[in-house]
Amino acid sequence: MQKKQGKQSIVFANPPIITSTANIGGPMEGEGLLGNYFDHLIEDNLNNLCSWEKCESYMLEQVIKTAVNKENSEITDIDCVFAGDLLNQLMSTHFALRELSRPFVGLYGACSTMALSMLVGAMMIDGGFANKVAGAASSHHDAAERQYRFPTELGVQRPPVAQWTVTGAGAAILSATGQGPKITCATVGKIVDLGIKDPNALGPAMAPAAVDTLWQHIQDTGREPAYYDMIFTGDLGSVGKTMVIQLMQEKGLDISSNYEDCGCMIYSESQDAHAGASGCASSAVVFCGYLYQMLVAGKLNKILLIGTGSLHSPTSYQQKESIPCIAHAVAIEM
Amino acid sequence: MQKKQGKQSIVFANPPIITSTANIGGPMEGEGLLGNYFDHLIEDNLNNLCSWEKCESYMLEQVIKTAVNKENSEITDIDCVFAGDLLNQLMSTHFALRELSRPFVGLYGACSTMALSMLVGAMMIDGGFANKVAGAASSHHDAAERQYRFPTELGVQRPPVAQWTVTGAGAAILSATGQGPKITCATVGKIVDLGIKDPNALGPAMAPAAVDTLWQHIQDTGREPAYYDMIFTGDLGSVGKTMVIQLMQEKGLDISSNYEDCGCMIYSESQDAHAGASGCASSAVVFCGYLYQMLVAGKLNKILLIGTGSLHSPTSYQQKESIPCIAHAVAIEM
Repeated sequence: MQKKQGKQSIVFANPPIITSTANIGGPMEGEGLLGNYFDHLIEDNLNNLCSWEKCESYMLEQVIKTAVNKENSEITDIDCVFAGDLLNQLMSTHFALRELSRPFVGLYGACSTMALSMLVGAMMIDGGFANKVAGAASSHHDAAERQYRFPTELGVQRPPVAQWTVTGAGAAILSATGQGPKITCATVGKIVDLGIKDPNALGPAMAPAAVDTLWQHIQDTGREPAYYDMIFTGDLGSVGKTMVIQLMQEKGLDISSNYEDCGCMIYSESQDAHAGASGCASSAVVFCGYLYQMLVAGKLNKILLIGTGSLHSPTSYQQKESIPCIAHAVAIEM
Repeated sequence: MQKKQGKQSIVFANPPIITSTANIGGPMEGEGLLGNYFDHLIEDNLNNLCSWEKCESYMLEQVIKTAVNKENSEITDIDCVFAGDLLNQLMSTHFALRELSRPFVGLYGACSTMALSMLVGAMMIDGGFANKVAGAASSHHDAAERQYRFPTELGVQRPPVAQWTVTGAGAAILSATGQGPKITCATVGKIVDLGIKDPNALGPAMAPAAVDTLWQHIQDTGREPAYYDMIFTGDLGSVGKTMVIQLMQEKGLDISSNYEDCGCMIYSESQDAHAGASGCASSAVVFCGYLYQMLVAGKLNKILLIGTGSLHSPTSYQQKESIPCIAHAVAIEM
């Protein structure tokens, strides 16, 4: 069987099964629209730890452990962990993985990391190199804010296009055997940069990358958008989401009826998150909670999750560079 | 065939072939011990670009293109690129990949990235998901210095245990068919942290991770160290190298006669690099130049390349954390 399909896609011969997921959120996420779809909620953004980074690390460790427990495995049953976060040198991930002491591959896909970790993890399983792996991602609003923008405590006013980095984490266990939704195919993204330089406008910067990957997925697999019950992008927010619909329309495809963005599903209007949610945890908490539950309950049968990542750094911004973006897609079916 | 072997290792059913490699170095690397084993040398650390980060990006782009050219392929023949660097948010890698416009998976393994990129790339090929991929890594002394330690221009005095971050990059093309040395098996590392907190002492911090992976490789595969003509670690420098020999001796294995560290092979004594070379480019330039040529010439037949990475960040150092380290091993045989 030819597993490579078209230019950027792969089809799994023995689709890896997502046997379990877990997620965690902060106080604001708990008060949001998906508050009932979290395994854990922390009560404040420090969670009795001495830094936001350590709190993020705790969350990542917690979701991996919880996902493992949920399917009655031991952490030692996990052959490899694929994970990443937004912080410099993946700080949260590395300290979480130090505690877990499992074989580990660090990924940097910015906010596309959850989908990327499942994509690479699925290759490891379908390739026959592992029986069980974990894919995971995390972000923390306060830690991201001070790293990417301004000191968090300064409370600098944000423009309406800006999104709110999610405090949370998600983990998915991928297995060669077992019960659950399957990862049937995937499309590896390439970097797209249309020249946006405003690090507040990440949704608009990432939208063309999401469209590039979705379009390539359709070309490679022959699956029209209508094949999926729903297509989800990771964290484009309301502005980026509108752009995706419009850009697809320009290509002759109307996805307005079966497309949503995870970044538009987390916070309510009254929470004043401006254009929506962002961060690795945006797609991670939505997929590893609400979406996974909908799949298992049979309310969704076929979804395409397109993780979207903005790959700029504060240094590249200071050097007046535009924002390179990427999107990776995984098709998940019951 | 069982591809998973032991706890952390994998054996490839159809070992991917390293059909081509390329490397590039800075002026200091060109004057070093392996000066004749570079495809390109840049004349100064900026290479007529406006920042060290952009220079690093240029080098990474250059080696991938050169490696592709060397085996008479086109860049569009590359199904996926696996790459990373040391900079925050993989800045150099992302801007290089923006130019190359190929499907891309970003890896963060710090200085273990070259071995990690070949490990994950080999899984993609042996798993049947791609015909040809590239693995690549880069670092730049001046860019790394100011990010991790002090403003580079300040010229802060370095302790004798410190190593010198290599300015350079390396790329390897992995193919399902063709001629060249093969990646026969690999061991995925786990994070090891024995409590060292001094970010100048990265060799000593990483040595236990290298030993952990080497020891696990021996347990998993049954290959004694003597199976290999040579075992190479990535960038432990003279202090870390001595520790590896000693730690293996404590386990009852003498590797002193067939073990070397890439970080001890790049600079001459007179270049005053203190404990040796470090950075993603340390193992990348040595493997993609000298070692690959030795393999092709039949002067080496079986090597184990153990990429070693220090996963700390300036933030984790400021928060008084110790240094988590990792090592990934790939066995390369003619």
